[in-house]
Amino acid sequence: MTDASTINGLVDRLRSGDTRALARAISLVENDSPEAPALLSACFPHTGSATGAPGEPARRGGATGAPGEPARWGGALRIGITGAPGVGKSTLVDRLAQQYRHADRTVGLIAVDPTSPFTGGALLGDRIRLREHASDPGFYARSMATRGSLGGLALATADVALVLEASGKDILLIETVGVGQDEIEIARLADVTLVVLVPGMGDDVQSLKAGVMEIADIFVVNKSDRDGADRVEQEIRTLQSLAAKHELRTPPVIRTIATIGDGIPALAVALNEMEQWLRQENRLEARRTEHWQRRLDSMLRTELMRRARNNGFDAKLLRFHAARIASGQQDPWQLVAELARKVFSANDQNPTAGL
Amino acid sequence: MTDASTINGLVDRLRSGDTRALARAISLVENDSPEAPALLSACFPHTGSATGAPGEPARRGGATGAPGEPARWGGALRIGITGAPGVGKSTLVDRLAQQYRHADRTVGLIAVDPTSPFTGGALLGDRIRLREHASDPGFYARSMATRGSLGGLALATADVALVLEASGKDILLIETVGVGQDEIEIARLADVTLVVLVPGMGDDVQSLKAGVMEIADIFVVNKSDRDGADRVEQEIRTLQSLAAKHELRTPPVIRTIATIGDGIPALAVALNEMEQWLRQENRLEARRTEHWQRRLDSMLRTELMRRARNNGFDAKLLRFHAARIASGQQDPWQLVAELARKVFSANDQNPTAGL
Repeated sequence: MTDASTINGLVDRLRSGDTRALARAISLVENDSPEAPALLSACFPHTGSATGAPGEPARRGGATGAPGEPARWGGALRIGITGAPGVGKSTLVDRLAQQYRHADRTVGLIAVDPTSPFTGGALLGDRIRLREHASDPGFYARSMATRGSLGGLALATADVALVLEASGKDILLIETVGVGQDEIEIARLADVTLVVLVPGMGDDVQSLKAGVMEIADIFVVNKSDRDGADRVEQEIRTLQSLAAKHELRTPPVIRTIATIGDGIPALAVALNEMEQWLRQENRLEARRTEHWQRRLDSMLRTELMRRARNNGFDAKLLRFHAARIASGQQDPWQLVAELARKVFSANDQNPTAGL
Repeated sequence: MTDASTINGLVDRLRSGDTRALARAISLVENDSPEAPALLSACFPHTGSATGAPGEPARRGGATGAPGEPARWGGALRIGITGAPGVGKSTLVDRLAQQYRHADRTVGLIAVDPTSPFTGGALLGDRIRLREHASDPGFYARSMATRGSLGGLALATADVALVLEASGKDILLIETVGVGQDEIEIARLADVTLVVLVPGMGDDVQSLKAGVMEIADIFVVNKSDRDGADRVEQEIRTLQSLAAKHELRTPPVIRTIATIGDGIPALAVALNEMEQWLRQENRLEARRTEHWQRRLDSMLRTELMRRARNNGFDAKLLRFHAARIASGQQDPWQLVAELARKVFSANDQNPTAGL
């Protein structure tokens, strides 16, 4: 699949609700195949922009268009969900998906596990609640593990989200395991971030505080029938009082028991309020501009390196130099300056290389 | 401080045991100051290489040179220690530092917390055991938090480790909080990686498995007087039996109670065995070649981007384009291809820019 008409055909099919075309497009993007940039370019016009006024018709076509649905200017809403292993994120996310489907909003779910290259189907296979949606064209779920090294996964997740949005989904749920830098990067690509905690985490709330206090729009205390729910909420409030001075809005704390659906309607209300808040005063556009600035930086970095590789500055060359460095024969800082000079001059001699 | 003689003077001072010079050099590197590459270049000749034969005198000078000490060809040994918050890593690392000091090996400690930009002194300030080393010239501890975005911290940690090695430390202990991608990257820069677990983690051992099973050279079950130590060890063994087929060596599992020093001598024995194993059949050199290959890739990526920034492809320009993308006026993939072309041609017009 290399020419533009084939890519446009794939995009047409995934937009018409063809699940196999959608799955194929996502795989191309996830695997960073050569067609990925053209495919993403072709999807881009079918995603929302934040410029339209509320109530204006959505600029993109999509699988949904029923009367009475909420205004969709700004395109799909990206909701990131993060938290340590064992807090019940998957169950919570499944409940949220149900809630949105009952409200007739279409849902795309991306489950990301940066700690495991193995999860593949497992992460979704265990999730019995999702099976009721197996034949629901308004729902699509996909799990992702690592792509390449640092930063690659956040970029890949953002790309997959874009394809899902182009397929006409109203709500994108992006679930990440853990609370490391990768998860924070992924959360930053969302419009709204939920941080899920449970009672009895002890020191973990403390260890979460820095990165996570900044990204949380809504806190969820799940398994809130356990002892210590009050204490977790109190700790969140204490940390907020330290961190909140630059915030326009204090993130609410919602208690849930996801296994029995308790608190899910309250969470949906909080999410709707957050969505309304974001769609005022250009806040959504401001957030997305920040997202794109980070993403452009990553994309440009990756593109420069891709061109360098295509010009012979590849793994084999780096390995040759790495062995010389490891044996003390080559200074790495002098080498990198020299390699960077050569990357540019090689490109100059062959200006169409790598295009 | 911009000229070479000043940098060489700083390196001479830190090599002679001047702690303030060492602290200053580390700060320059940690903050990615303009002098950092020259400073690291000047440190590089004073770090070990893996080429010497066992028993050959170490090629670098250093603060230690007592007769009877272990052969130090290959320079400082980098020991990475990782594990979830609350497993007692800090106490364990402090005990290990003591153990090495008692064996007359000099120690540098880097405590890294990617989840918190705030830790600064706190991470070390609480560690009473380290205070006995406050006036010990054979010991130096430093905490680090995030530098920039993804990948930056792993690179900065590796750079700080190099400065510590140049100062003559035999053993570098690199402690990271958590088990995300960042920590795995940091661990990959170590020669030996300890993964610390505690009984009663439940699902956490499962969630660790993929990335961590690959990087662990030694498992430590700390707080092993708690219920469930057998079970944790059993789980590790089970996961090993699934993952171990490509491994030459089965990582040992050492039980400790770090608070009272229990098991620390056994851990020291395991570390010495690992060190001997690494120093055979070019294993240390092979590992370090892999490390340098990854690091060269990151360094080249960063250098290409730095040159792009110096040529006007800076945050302001990216922000301008990000706003146009967020409002749907600009296709990001077409933009990045165009920007990359312009980066190269700008560099061509002004070939000395960014040097």
